[in-house]
Amino acid sequence: MNRVEDTICAIATAQGGAIGLIRVSGPDAITATSHIFKPSKAAKSLEDAKPYSLTFGQITDGKEIVDEVLVSLFRAPHSYTGEDSTEIACHGSSYILQRVLQLLIQEGCRMAMPGEYTQRAYMNGKMDLSQAEAVADLIASTSAATHRLAMSQMRGGFSKELAQLRDQLLHFTSLIELELDFSDHEDIEFADRSELFRLADHIEQVITRLTDSFRVGNALKKGIPVAIVGKTNVGKSTLLNRLLHEDRAIVSDIHGTTRDVIEDTIVIGGITFRFIDTAGLRETSDAIEQIGIQRAYQKLEEAQIGLWLIDTPPSEEELHDMASRCEDKKLIIVRNKADKPSDADFTFVKSQATLNDTGAQRSFNFQFSTLNFQFIELSAKFDPNIDALQHLLVQAAEMPEVTQADVIVTNVRHYEALTHALEAIQRVQQGLHDGLSGDFLSQDIRECIYHLSDIVGEVTADDVLQNIFKHFCVGK
Amino acid sequence: MNRVEDTICAIATAQGGAIGLIRVSGPDAITATSHIFKPSKAAKSLEDAKPYSLTFGQITDGKEIVDEVLVSLFRAPHSYTGEDSTEIACHGSSYILQRVLQLLIQEGCRMAMPGEYTQRAYMNGKMDLSQAEAVADLIASTSAATHRLAMSQMRGGFSKELAQLRDQLLHFTSLIELELDFSDHEDIEFADRSELFRLADHIEQVITRLTDSFRVGNALKKGIPVAIVGKTNVGKSTLLNRLLHEDRAIVSDIHGTTRDVIEDTIVIGGITFRFIDTAGLRETSDAIEQIGIQRAYQKLEEAQIGLWLIDTPPSEEELHDMASRCEDKKLIIVRNKADKPSDADFTFVKSQATLNDTGAQRSFNFQFSTLNFQFIELSAKFDPNIDALQHLLVQAAEMPEVTQADVIVTNVRHYEALTHALEAIQRVQQGLHDGLSGDFLSQDIRECIYHLSDIVGEVTADDVLQNIFKHFCVGK
Repeated sequence: MNRVEDTICAIATAQGGAIGLIRVSGPDAITATSHIFKPSKAAKSLEDAKPYSLTFGQITDGKEIVDEVLVSLFRAPHSYTGEDSTEIACHGSSYILQRVLQLLIQEGCRMAMPGEYTQRAYMNGKMDLSQAEAVADLIASTSAATHRLAMSQMRGGFSKELAQLRDQLLHFTSLIELELDFSDHEDIEFADRSELFRLADHIEQVITRLTDSFRVGNALKKGIPVAIVGKTNVGKSTLLNRLLHEDRAIVSDIHGTTRDVIEDTIVIGGITFRFIDTAGLRETSDAIEQIGIQRAYQKLEEAQIGLWLIDTPPSEEELHDMASRCEDKKLIIVRNKADKPSDADFTFVKSQATLNDTGAQRSFNFQFSTLNFQFIELSAKFDPNIDALQHLLVQAAEMPEVTQADVIVTNVRHYEALTHALEAIQRVQQGLHDGLSGDFLSQDIRECIYHLSDIVGEVTADDVLQNIFKHFCVGK
Repeated sequence: MNRVEDTICAIATAQGGAIGLIRVSGPDAITATSHIFKPSKAAKSLEDAKPYSLTFGQITDGKEIVDEVLVSLFRAPHSYTGEDSTEIACHGSSYILQRVLQLLIQEGCRMAMPGEYTQRAYMNGKMDLSQAEAVADLIASTSAATHRLAMSQMRGGFSKELAQLRDQLLHFTSLIELELDFSDHEDIEFADRSELFRLADHIEQVITRLTDSFRVGNALKKGIPVAIVGKTNVGKSTLLNRLLHEDRAIVSDIHGTTRDVIEDTIVIGGITFRFIDTAGLRETSDAIEQIGIQRAYQKLEEAQIGLWLIDTPPSEEELHDMASRCEDKKLIIVRNKADKPSDADFTFVKSQATLNDTGAQRSFNFQFSTLNFQFIELSAKFDPNIDALQHLLVQAAEMPEVTQADVIVTNVRHYEALTHALEAIQRVQQGLHDGLSGDFLSQDIRECIYHLSDIVGEVTADDVLQNIFKHFCVGK
């Protein structure tokens, strides 16, 4: 753990904008800033400035003016970190920002480590650990759903649920102690354990709901895995680019959007879809045609949704094969190049299908063997929009509508702790069933409480903390 | 010109950081922000907040919380733009920043155009046009020198100099009017024009100094053009990469430094060196050896400094050839691969040379024919440092030490206006010499004043203004 007597500084904004922000936090934050800052004539000195005030002036190295800046001032404990803090809004030149950092370091500050501001907020009791983790998720959020989950968690929805659970577990413990008291003094069997049963069942249900929510939470956070499979030249890349492009249109006017981050990830209807290993799929266009579809099948295994692109009707054998591969998945069969006249007869696929007319393209519900799939005809190249396909993807994702009031687990660490807590409470249930004594039950209850406390950071080991915060960006 | 009754909004930070800043400016800035903002319990409403204050609270779309933010508040005329303004510091998620912008636009704000905040500051009299232009230069500054020039100009050093010139020109005009009055009423020759001569000479000298400073200002701003020439495989790319690498080390710990921007540009001793068309030079390693050096010679013409890489002693003919090409340039001959044992005899080059021992590598002053050049031996691959070469480059740049008090012209638009002003004042001098009447002189004086006023934006046409601000970044 870093010594909190250190005063830390960091650039909190990405480089390249009009404005760059430097954050300073710690016992000497205001003094260090005031040493390199000359307020404009009209303004008070920083040391006399009120909390939550802005002061205009110059950053100077004693000889030259480094920049004209606005300094925000916060006094402990009323700041993000809970410490004395300043924020220096500079012109967004990397040269200027580096100079200001250098000056602060000369004044005794040190460079902040990733996530150190949030870590201090956590250590100073401004938020618990699950809330701190949500800050990183919030910054990384790229869709309505991930934003909603992170916001709910940061605002303490999850923490409240855990606090209630722990209250109930403590209540459970007190009931057991009551039983132990009786058994000590009266030496009689404490027959009626019905309240304990009821309480343990309730706790088990809540923890189960939370662990189960991880499926949704993880899918929303990481994106629903989708595999585009199909023979070479059927238009897989064209379709993918088309899907990516429709998404990009939403963000295309954002200056400086990092293309890497949204590469092969698409947000439709607030839900993120992730195209698994599509780089590999793209390469298959150069590969030998015969093995093309086999390689794609491997990708399919990792997916939750399969997009099977065809331009000729599949044989019954191929359909059977796909049906067996997609038993645990959703399958959408896309007939591409539907604009081209074709001798191919798709009536086999369409027979007995239910037509869903949703605009330019038409989709069909189709039952084959044990598999219920969707069939849609389109031209990835020429259709003016691919709304119907997007609609089918959202449908196939089967994501429940999420609100900020919902508590959904998105974090693997939380999921693991909840799994351990669930095991512990299930041992309690079994113990109650087997008529074990209160002593034995207490131990499992304590373990359950321990794992829940680990989530909010009350019993979390230093190395785990370090690992959590090192994945934050610098300046947060 | 955009209507200033519009309230504008924009993201002022680059995307990808911990914090993202949205600026709002215009008559409805505070109202629009307050409509989407709910202050925390302890805080006042935005409309009641004091200027230069920060308010913590939530951005909300009426149904959901979009973010927890800090809002800075400024009231006209005490803001950057001179208008009512707010700045919303959000978590740096592109999703969140876009949502906040959308909400502001729903409240009647519109997206700001590039440089529109600074344009409004100029229109509201917060700064003149040359100061506004310096804001963009300041943000783009990447070295001590460019930073110093931009800071001086932004703080009005240049404007002050121009104001003094215009005062003197107006004084000149008043003297001429006095003369005209005399000639009207007395109908006599006004013989003693010595003060007019003195004044015109002084003005001409100042304008000449300013136009001359453009050579330095432009070199500092764009970088001193350097050409690396030499035969194939002599190690041009290795040397360039080495120079770039030594420079990169300075900025390598800056998160998100745009490599594109500093590609082939090196800051040494606060001075920027620009390697001209080195992409072309690099390709020559694949080209036919015989034409390699010829192609590089073409690059040399555009350069201020030539770096001639050799690994075998040049013939006298080659030296003569280079001498004729470098009459108006500085030449540094670099013997690369000096670590390798070589039969080659460099004594011819070194004879009569003056040794400058500056550390690991040794450099020599060398006089050949009319050319005075530097000779240095090094290994671009293996020398632990290339300080001596960097030192020679700084020396060859012949840049004066610049301080923030110096007025140096860096802007082509200013240079052109000054050139026109210079022509006008020179016509005045000629007119005085030829004994022209005050009427004729006045016209040229007016033209001189006009061009100087153009620099600070007092007479600048709308299309010129638009052209200036469209090169700013959005949010500034």
